[in-house]
Amino acid sequence: MRIPLDRQSNVPLYQQIEAFLREGIMSGSLVPDTRLPAIRQLARDLGINRITVENAYAELEADGLICSRVGSGTYVLPSYQLAPPPPNGEGEAWPLWQQELAAQGRAHHEGLLSTEVLAGAGHPSTARAGAQGPELITFATGVGDSRLFPVEDLRKIIQNVMRRDGVGALVYGEPRGYGPLRATIAQVLASQGVSARPDNILITAGSQQAISLVTQVLLKPNDAILVEVPTYGGALALFEAANLKIVGIPVDEAGMRVDELEKLLQQHHPKLIYTIPNFHNPTGTCLTGQRRSRLITLADRYNVPILEDDFVGDFRYDGRAQPALKALDPGGRVIYVSTFSKMLMPGLRVGFLVADGPIYEELVYSKRFNDMTTSNLIQRSLESYVTVGRFEAHLRRSCQVYRKRRDAMLWAIRRYLPPGVQVNPPQGGLYIWARLPQGLSTDQLLPFAWEQGVTFAPGRAFFPTAQADSSYMRLNFAAQSPDDITEGIKRLGQAIAKLAAN
Amino acid sequence: MRIPLDRQSNVPLYQQIEAFLREGIMSGSLVPDTRLPAIRQLARDLGINRITVENAYAELEADGLICSRVGSGTYVLPSYQLAPPPPNGEGEAWPLWQQELAAQGRAHHEGLLSTEVLAGAGHPSTARAGAQGPELITFATGVGDSRLFPVEDLRKIIQNVMRRDGVGALVYGEPRGYGPLRATIAQVLASQGVSARPDNILITAGSQQAISLVTQVLLKPNDAILVEVPTYGGALALFEAANLKIVGIPVDEAGMRVDELEKLLQQHHPKLIYTIPNFHNPTGTCLTGQRRSRLITLADRYNVPILEDDFVGDFRYDGRAQPALKALDPGGRVIYVSTFSKMLMPGLRVGFLVADGPIYEELVYSKRFNDMTTSNLIQRSLESYVTVGRFEAHLRRSCQVYRKRRDAMLWAIRRYLPPGVQVNPPQGGLYIWARLPQGLSTDQLLPFAWEQGVTFAPGRAFFPTAQADSSYMRLNFAAQSPDDITEGIKRLGQAIAKLAAN
Repeated sequence: MRIPLDRQSNVPLYQQIEAFLREGIMSGSLVPDTRLPAIRQLARDLGINRITVENAYAELEADGLICSRVGSGTYVLPSYQLAPPPPNGEGEAWPLWQQELAAQGRAHHEGLLSTEVLAGAGHPSTARAGAQGPELITFATGVGDSRLFPVEDLRKIIQNVMRRDGVGALVYGEPRGYGPLRATIAQVLASQGVSARPDNILITAGSQQAISLVTQVLLKPNDAILVEVPTYGGALALFEAANLKIVGIPVDEAGMRVDELEKLLQQHHPKLIYTIPNFHNPTGTCLTGQRRSRLITLADRYNVPILEDDFVGDFRYDGRAQPALKALDPGGRVIYVSTFSKMLMPGLRVGFLVADGPIYEELVYSKRFNDMTTSNLIQRSLESYVTVGRFEAHLRRSCQVYRKRRDAMLWAIRRYLPPGVQVNPPQGGLYIWARLPQGLSTDQLLPFAWEQGVTFAPGRAFFPTAQADSSYMRLNFAAQSPDDITEGIKRLGQAIAKLAAN
Repeated sequence: MRIPLDRQSNVPLYQQIEAFLREGIMSGSLVPDTRLPAIRQLARDLGINRITVENAYAELEADGLICSRVGSGTYVLPSYQLAPPPPNGEGEAWPLWQQELAAQGRAHHEGLLSTEVLAGAGHPSTARAGAQGPELITFATGVGDSRLFPVEDLRKIIQNVMRRDGVGALVYGEPRGYGPLRATIAQVLASQGVSARPDNILITAGSQQAISLVTQVLLKPNDAILVEVPTYGGALALFEAANLKIVGIPVDEAGMRVDELEKLLQQHHPKLIYTIPNFHNPTGTCLTGQRRSRLITLADRYNVPILEDDFVGDFRYDGRAQPALKALDPGGRVIYVSTFSKMLMPGLRVGFLVADGPIYEELVYSKRFNDMTTSNLIQRSLESYVTVGRFEAHLRRSCQVYRKRRDAMLWAIRRYLPPGVQVNPPQGGLYIWARLPQGLSTDQLLPFAWEQGVTFAPGRAFFPTAQADSSYMRLNFAAQSPDDITEGIKRLGQAIAKLAAN
């Protein structure tokens, strides 16, 4: 234990030790049952006499804060009163730089606060309104149904990998990712029509990190970035925190309004186009083939890279599959990002990107100084789990389940929500994007929904802060059973009725 | 499979499919034994006639690129010649923005390329020189001895955690980290004399990410940052990539030359002081108690936050323990960073930071848009593994082993290296920092060392690019057995002799 001692002070050393330990115990940082260092050890560590430590311990023991058990050591006792959590240690002010930081009042985009992380985790703070009655049905989460996750398979595989690789699974791995996993991903991508070489794949901590790395490499503060509006809130949060100028392009039922693209490219000179062409988050729309070609042509003409976020590209339930933008890329124009979070398990935190050309090495370097490399053990386990066959089987099964749930939600919406609610039936993905009748706000709806025992992702989270629109909400149909979907939408209908009557 | 089709083209659809698959096979992205989609399935996906797909497959089969196995499907065959790796698809040039990126020739700091990651991973690219003869002995790595990692314990614990928590271990967790793990860390820190509340701890992907988050929150491009010179290369790489102005402060055998601090603070107005007070990387020095107090006083007077990197703070082999700067912090002045990478296993990628005051929530928010959260499964397993008692036992054991290795290396240096080599015996940590006699460069020494079958981390990796100094090298004494240390230093002596004679 490293206790700060002031040898110049008038306060005897034993009292300094005693005061330090007392404060730790009273503030709760030395929790009950913590074993204090042996007297001999602490004396040696601090370069002081044993008697000094003994005196300090004796004072604390006399005050009932610690006790020594013969042959076992000295332990912290439960204390009667814990100091209140310090807004600041001595009631002193925070240092000036902290006050300045607080005064800046940096905006935190709701895209991160309300949907992906909190809802997925069932974090207590999502339970901010009181749903005392029925169990809460959440349509807010960003991911699929965790009950479909192959937990047991993964458990066995992690065992096998640790037995097989031993310490090899626990040292730093290659910064760009475990080679065999990159090879597997190349195969999975090839089976989906995207041609990638393992050497152009970079493993990341989820697609969020992939987007972050691309942003760090390609954009500086005040650069413009072109995004669909609405779009994924986690990306918006990142772009706003990076002080980028966010240029929005509207979305209709056929995806990004590519007919408006050229004008925006000429006007704003964006340094990157961020797009979700398949089962767009949050609108669920899919970019048509013609628009895809046009998008690539224009991006090429205006010399703008495309970041393609294909987070659920293969969750298609009907309609015709469209090629990934990356598959249409004549070479080095498109950076492709995807993840295992939606397909398999978000808690693994493994995603990847595909990039050709000089940018690839810059991205790898950026990965290195961001966090070195992604957990070797998890990568090796995924590699052992994922094969093209298994991935496709999992995909087929998920699609069957999710298709039924989408249909159940569409049916329930027609049945239980007022006719003024607008919805575009999505051909795949995880979400239905719904608009309330004129004048109603999903921000205002949320507390009523909580009252009824249902929740959703408020639409505001998917707009840039400056263009916030509260008439929409995103409903995840994939994470609940058809029965819960029906019940949840029914509750939502009641909440809307209450809001309208309010 | 999503195959791009151009329905306006004169090329028949079956030929487009054939060409797409052929290119995939020839380029290696569709590897041998990949199963192609069933004809019926692909026809449905693409919205075309089955005959069209049959025709495409027939052409490929006739060319010996695929074969259909009755009742099993259609598979890619091994192909005779793979296309050479495309510098670019059609021999076409990279898009202009990529050419510009390449032309910028962004500097990659050696601190990341040569030490932590590559050496730790035994990455093939470290084997750039030919040590054909004896097996390579590496003193280059940044971590401890992987043979001491508790692999088998961890394997059992992951099992138990997955059985206990099921899918709960595989969904997103809290962004700031798994609560019980934060509580455990608070206890471990308390036992080391650092008072922290679980609510002020943020779990990160190793300490590298912790440093990255602090940098992102506190600094803008062109801001000044004050660092010891030399210092940890991974931090330098990060700071240089963020376009910070790096202000160096020298280090002597008592750590940072705090007597030079005030002048530098007045002159450069740094926005952050990054320091490694305990067993400094790479010099191994430990900041004296007086200098610690003075550092905190000055940082407070000039309103500069301190980032304390305590990556191996408790690997002390002799001398008196010094309090962490965080333990001396009157409140909100010091951000404390540490990691499980050095103590337990680097491949886990789990570190943490402690911050009080308004900055804490900014760091949590930054963690969210960087990569959401760190792997839930790994956090839960660590929580289950780490207790104060177990951590201290592991620490004691490691210290016993590493102390002997340090002594072995110091002995071998005196015995086998020329007397002109300068070394300060460290009281703890993992490294010995050695300086070659006047005029000799460790960059030039490296190929000779490889020839002899030994390697080290060249000193240049620990200096800002603008102040590179090649007279030093960092020798890791913790990762090799005493015998290998003796043999490795002997080889190093031979290499120095050869260089000197060259």
